[in-house]
Amino acid sequence: MKKSVEVKTIVFPTPVFIVGTYDEESKPNVMTVAWGGLCCSDPPCIALSLRKATYSYGNIVEREAFTVNIPSEAHVKEADYFGITSGRKKDKFSTTGLTPVKSDLVDAPYVKEFPLILECQLLHTLELGLHTQFIGKIMDVKADETVLDEAGLPDIKKVNPIAFSPGNRIYYKIGEFLAQAFSIGREVV
Amino acid sequence: MKKSVEVKTIVFPTPVFIVGTYDEESKPNVMTVAWGGLCCSDPPCIALSLRKATYSYGNIVEREAFTVNIPSEAHVKEADYFGITSGRKKDKFSTTGLTPVKSDLVDAPYVKEFPLILECQLLHTLELGLHTQFIGKIMDVKADETVLDEAGLPDIKKVNPIAFSPGNRIYYKIGEFLAQAFSIGREVV
Repeated sequence: MKKSVEVKTIVFPTPVFIVGTYDEESKPNVMTVAWGGLCCSDPPCIALSLRKATYSYGNIVEREAFTVNIPSEAHVKEADYFGITSGRKKDKFSTTGLTPVKSDLVDAPYVKEFPLILECQLLHTLELGLHTQFIGKIMDVKADETVLDEAGLPDIKKVNPIAFSPGNRIYYKIGEFLAQAFSIGREVV
Repeated sequence: MKKSVEVKTIVFPTPVFIVGTYDEESKPNVMTVAWGGLCCSDPPCIALSLRKATYSYGNIVEREAFTVNIPSEAHVKEADYFGITSGRKKDKFSTTGLTPVKSDLVDAPYVKEFPLILECQLLHTLELGLHTQFIGKIMDVKADETVLDEAGLPDIKKVNPIAFSPGNRIYYKIGEFLAQAFSIGREVV
C-alpha cells in the first residue's frame, strides 16, 4: 500500500549540472542546476530550469548561450557552493580557484577542471511558474581524454559525477555496474 | 586539454523513468524514458521527452495524464524491457507479471511494485524535433512506507533507483553518500 508523501519535486536520481554563462561585463559565472535533463536527440538538446531571481537567468536571456559542466565528486564542495552563492555578490571562479575557458562555439565559458562539458545555444524558453525552462541545442561535447573509454565515449565511472537526492538533499556517488541497457530486457520473454 | 567527442546526447547521470499511460481501450502501458527531469518547483512539474513513434506518445496526447514510476535496481530487467518493446505489440504488464494500479488523481496507471511514483496531469507540450516534450504537473507523490526515512521522505538508498549512462548505454546503481547539499559548499570561503 503506497502512502502519499504529498506534492513534492522528488525523483531519483537528479543530475548536478554546473551551468556556465557570461554576464553583461563578460564576467564568467557558474550556477548549480538539478532541475534539468536531456530532452531531444535530433536536434540534440538539453533542458535546464532556473528561477528568474538567479544571476544566470539574465545572462542566458542576454547571451542566448550556456555551457553544462559535469563536475567530478572531487569537486562536490565547489558544486554545492555554486548553488548557494550568487554571482551578483561573488566571483565564483576566483573564490574557488577554478578556471573559466571561453568556448569557441558559443558565447559562454566552461570549467576547465570539470571532465565533461556541453556547449549549448539557446533554442527555446518556456515560462513554467517559479522556474523558466531553457532548452539549449548541444553544439559540441568535450571531455578530458582521461575520462574516455576504449570506444572514445565518456565513461561515467571515470567522470565520477554526482547524483542528487531531492527531499533530504544529499549528494551521492555513482555506484556499481548494474546491467547493459537495450540488452538485459531481452530476457523477459 | 579537452577533446571533442562530437555532438552527442550525453550527460551523467540520467534517470530511468517508467512512464505509465492508458491507451484508447484503457489498456495500461509503460515505457522507459531517460530524457527528462524535474523542471519547476511551483507548480511542481516534471518533463519527459518521447518520440512521436511511441505508443505512449498517443496515450499522453489523448488522456493528458501519465505517471512517473521509479524502479528499484531489482527490476532493472523489466525497466529495460519496457524501453525495447512497444505497447502496440505486447501487454507489458502481463509479460512481466507487474501490476497496474489505476490512479485516483489522474487518468493513468502506476506500477504497484515500484517504490516511488508521481501522478501527473499534462500541462504543456513542446515539439522539439525527434522528441516531443511533455510537462506534467505533479498532483501527488506516493511511496512504499518501507522506503521512507525518519522524516517521512523517500530515501534514495532504500528506493535503490537506477542511473543510466548514455553513450555506452549502461545502468548503474546509486553509490555511497558523498555530502550534504546546501551545506558542504559553505566550506568555500
